[in-house]
Amino acid sequence: MNKFIRVDMTTMKVTTEEVPAKYAGLGGRALTSNFINDEVKPTCHALGKNNKLIFAPGLLSGTTAPNSGRLSVGGKSPLTGTIKESNTGGSFSQKMAKMGIKALVVEGMPSDDKYYVIKIDIKGVTIDEAPAEILGGCGNYRAIEVLSEKYGEKVGIGLAGPAGEHRLPSANISFKDPEGNIRSAGRGGLGAVMGSKRVKAIVIDDTGAGAVAVADPEKFRAAAKVFAKAILDHPVSGQGLAAYGTDVLINILNEAGGLPAYNFTAGRIDHNDNICGETLNAVITERGGEGKVSHGCHAGCIMRCSQWYPDKQGKYITSGFEYETIWGLGADAGIKDLDEIAYIDREMDDIGVDSIETAVAVATAMEGGLLPWGDGKAVLEAVKEIRTATPLGRILGSGTSVVGKVCGLYRTPVVKDQGIPAYDPRPVKGIGLTYATSTMGADHTAGYCISGNILKVGADIDPLKKDGQIEYSRAMQIGTAAVDSTGMCLFVYFGIADNPGGYQALIDMINAQYGISLTAEDVDKLGESVLKVERAFNKAAGFTNAHDRLPEFFEYEPCPPHNVVWDFTPEEIDEVYAFEKEEALNS
Amino acid sequence: MNKFIRVDMTTMKVTTEEVPAKYAGLGGRALTSNFINDEVKPTCHALGKNNKLIFAPGLLSGTTAPNSGRLSVGGKSPLTGTIKESNTGGSFSQKMAKMGIKALVVEGMPSDDKYYVIKIDIKGVTIDEAPAEILGGCGNYRAIEVLSEKYGEKVGIGLAGPAGEHRLPSANISFKDPEGNIRSAGRGGLGAVMGSKRVKAIVIDDTGAGAVAVADPEKFRAAAKVFAKAILDHPVSGQGLAAYGTDVLINILNEAGGLPAYNFTAGRIDHNDNICGETLNAVITERGGEGKVSHGCHAGCIMRCSQWYPDKQGKYITSGFEYETIWGLGADAGIKDLDEIAYIDREMDDIGVDSIETAVAVATAMEGGLLPWGDGKAVLEAVKEIRTATPLGRILGSGTSVVGKVCGLYRTPVVKDQGIPAYDPRPVKGIGLTYATSTMGADHTAGYCISGNILKVGADIDPLKKDGQIEYSRAMQIGTAAVDSTGMCLFVYFGIADNPGGYQALIDMINAQYGISLTAEDVDKLGESVLKVERAFNKAAGFTNAHDRLPEFFEYEPCPPHNVVWDFTPEEIDEVYAFEKEEALNS
Repeated sequence: MNKFIRVDMTTMKVTTEEVPAKYAGLGGRALTSNFINDEVKPTCHALGKNNKLIFAPGLLSGTTAPNSGRLSVGGKSPLTGTIKESNTGGSFSQKMAKMGIKALVVEGMPSDDKYYVIKIDIKGVTIDEAPAEILGGCGNYRAIEVLSEKYGEKVGIGLAGPAGEHRLPSANISFKDPEGNIRSAGRGGLGAVMGSKRVKAIVIDDTGAGAVAVADPEKFRAAAKVFAKAILDHPVSGQGLAAYGTDVLINILNEAGGLPAYNFTAGRIDHNDNICGETLNAVITERGGEGKVSHGCHAGCIMRCSQWYPDKQGKYITSGFEYETIWGLGADAGIKDLDEIAYIDREMDDIGVDSIETAVAVATAMEGGLLPWGDGKAVLEAVKEIRTATPLGRILGSGTSVVGKVCGLYRTPVVKDQGIPAYDPRPVKGIGLTYATSTMGADHTAGYCISGNILKVGADIDPLKKDGQIEYSRAMQIGTAAVDSTGMCLFVYFGIADNPGGYQALIDMINAQYGISLTAEDVDKLGESVLKVERAFNKAAGFTNAHDRLPEFFEYEPCPPHNVVWDFTPEEIDEVYAFEKEEALNS
Repeated sequence: MNKFIRVDMTTMKVTTEEVPAKYAGLGGRALTSNFINDEVKPTCHALGKNNKLIFAPGLLSGTTAPNSGRLSVGGKSPLTGTIKESNTGGSFSQKMAKMGIKALVVEGMPSDDKYYVIKIDIKGVTIDEAPAEILGGCGNYRAIEVLSEKYGEKVGIGLAGPAGEHRLPSANISFKDPEGNIRSAGRGGLGAVMGSKRVKAIVIDDTGAGAVAVADPEKFRAAAKVFAKAILDHPVSGQGLAAYGTDVLINILNEAGGLPAYNFTAGRIDHNDNICGETLNAVITERGGEGKVSHGCHAGCIMRCSQWYPDKQGKYITSGFEYETIWGLGADAGIKDLDEIAYIDREMDDIGVDSIETAVAVATAMEGGLLPWGDGKAVLEAVKEIRTATPLGRILGSGTSVVGKVCGLYRTPVVKDQGIPAYDPRPVKGIGLTYATSTMGADHTAGYCISGNILKVGADIDPLKKDGQIEYSRAMQIGTAAVDSTGMCLFVYFGIADNPGGYQALIDMINAQYGISLTAEDVDKLGESVLKVERAFNKAAGFTNAHDRLPEFFEYEPCPPHNVVWDFTPEEIDEVYAFEKEEALNS
């Protein structure tokens, strides 16, 4: 990957450079975060002309390495005001990598009010006016059809949906998956940044591109085999996720008393059977038709944790139907009907809003009296209003923090204005530390301490106790920052956490591809360096340790059934990023 | 003033203490800000049980000193997240002072969902259940009637209106003025804090209270006479304000090219004749009836800058009809009919929202497509929705920053989430520095550099140039923090800025009242110390110099007719608070 493409939407000029030397060894999140910290003024307005959007495949994307097809999207977030890396499946990343594109940067802002499509193929980059029929409320499913018809069935597509056109803080960037359905770079509102730059879609056609160059193909193949086996041998990544999807977590978290319910007033629900992964599997199996129990979000995925969820007639409703969304609508907002949840999930995908942020916002709106508790039909109608940008639609599309403000709530579950997902930080303390300190705002994927706290993968730490959590959240955040730089799906962690050979195989693949000799320590250093760069950006944007805090109500409202509160002191929380301090002292 | 009253809304207990020694020499803003910094956790949620509200008369309140009847209200702001002092006219401050009450603190939060009235008289403090008829949408005008009927015509009243009950970030605290109309502690949403504590109203009955003790009555009388003469001799405070109200500024700022128009896209309008103070005066004079050209917001006011604005039949519509509100609706939102603006002003007072924040929010909503430009009737209907808390009403009642978020705008005129009032910072650079650096968010009253930049009172500084502005904004902010601690109306500044004898008379009154011997330097030190305390709170709440910035668009959008941009560097802006740094270096 030797191309670094910049599209300037102010001048409508495209430049293709050699990859700057300082970015040569970076991919995915390491590249997007370094670039944003280098080129974006931290105090700029996220929706103004000085923000930039960068799309970067991971180091291993485009190769035959299993599960390496994730794409990182970076920018300053209009939701949090922090730096943001949001990553996604779909086919975009692999196509970029195969075409040798290390990064695509979108900068500036046109002075007219048209929308544009950036089209990339082996001949170069063009900027077309967007077809009128995909604008002004056209859903993402239809827009993908129209663009695929126009540019070719096999193109990759990244898309700002109606929410992105409205520049709402929860707008995601939607990506076409191999079957023409939707994956999302969900969190942090980067779809609004794309909308602000008047880019409706980016289309990538890799026809004629070769394979990704691999320095030592034989070593690569051998390592990939070991790596694949490690993933498939593990009960979570090899079986659980394929059978029940991520929704397998409903019963696990409910049992653990860490499933936030009714806007974080409890950690357990009674209607878990209605919405759990086991039920999801049974419904899909029973309904048949277009339903699929197991499906991958990108070519080369061997875990296949996604499903196609069908209606009673067997017709596809939605896919990428994740635990966090089902939790948000089903437990936190109390909607007891999985079909209702599925239709809301489809609507969110079609409009292009983050289904985690929006689900948490919905539950918060219920506490604020804007919506009736548990009423899936009312929620679907309300979510539809995001498309037309009614006042209610704008509120819900602006995320949990705005909902809390307009409803005058102090029980607003956000960190750095990003909604807290799916795992209560009081009875699962490790994830609480990640929420508090992540550079991204509350984000479970930034350091998934559920693993060692609840699933007992990679570590065995009592979720109700503080012991060991600080070091654990730190290690998980560092490791994640590294994995997010490889193009790997985060779930590969399950396969390699307790399998040193699997982990070594991941490093071996990178070494074989690039003809280098990274060690495990180097990978750790990479992760640390990514977090430091992100913290530097955030600090310059005005963030301090005072922002690394959970909402105050967690400190004095015990969470049943364990009736525990959030009891880390500010000083303890700040220890998570101790490596930053040590560096400063040593320098 | 020797009483320090605490009302704990969690336990419903009232305690009356001696004034803590450390607060003995403080009043008004000096007292509220020190108290909040001492007792409120800076990272607490402003609407949670750990925030506190404090009401404090100024040092001279309750005496015969002209214009000394202002009340300071302090707390952590739900709008800005900063410390907040909001001050108001009305009769509350003088009654507190006469009853010897240095401060009233409201803390905690009841567990039920009733609303309460705190009643203070010389026998003590009681907590009554609020009458049902003043709840659930009852306007402030009617609530004042009901409470005056129940507790006595002459009582002082502080009130959370419907917006305060909804805990909206723009909710103000409304105070009964001597005629039963409305004054407001407007900015920063302290009405939402009052609502969160379920305090609908505070009623104060000073029947039986004596006069405020004055150590040296003769010296006091002599100083008060000199002071009054200084105010009345100055053309602004002695004539201009009484004749045309604060709305006299429309033509002055328009002429200067610093009147922000159509959401800060220009600094001048063509329809200034429709909304200027001269027209206001002419309309009131012509209509007669209940109209009054000149009126004071509290007993003892000799400037009388307020008016009663009547309808065509001569019936009272609104009072306290200020320049900033008329600017916001008339110039920034482009409403060309003064009657329409008056009805909207009345509605905002009746609902209990800050008329500056809401007017700026309205203009921003017009840019965002939520409201049609210049349509006063549509705005009145939209503002009415704040009362009933519809989604649109909630958006408008949440202030400019939320409007900007839900509309996906980067042209959102706020600093620290508070709407920028009435003076464009590009062509009036001094006020821009105050907006950027004030501890309160964008607040013209925090350091009114319009004085030396435009009115040429107290200084003569070219508003289009940077020269001298840093020192000037600093001096004005320090002086204001001191004046806000005396109970004096800020407008006394016009009388004393160029009149050393008038300034000395102000100090002499304080010395005569308390039997002390403050110097001008002591007063400066007091102002500095107040700002330092406020900065300390904000810093602990997570604010840094990165928040002392104007919105980015001011840096690249020239403001016609002068076509200047905001060009202070971050380093220059940070010089405004240089005294803080110097102190740190010397300590």
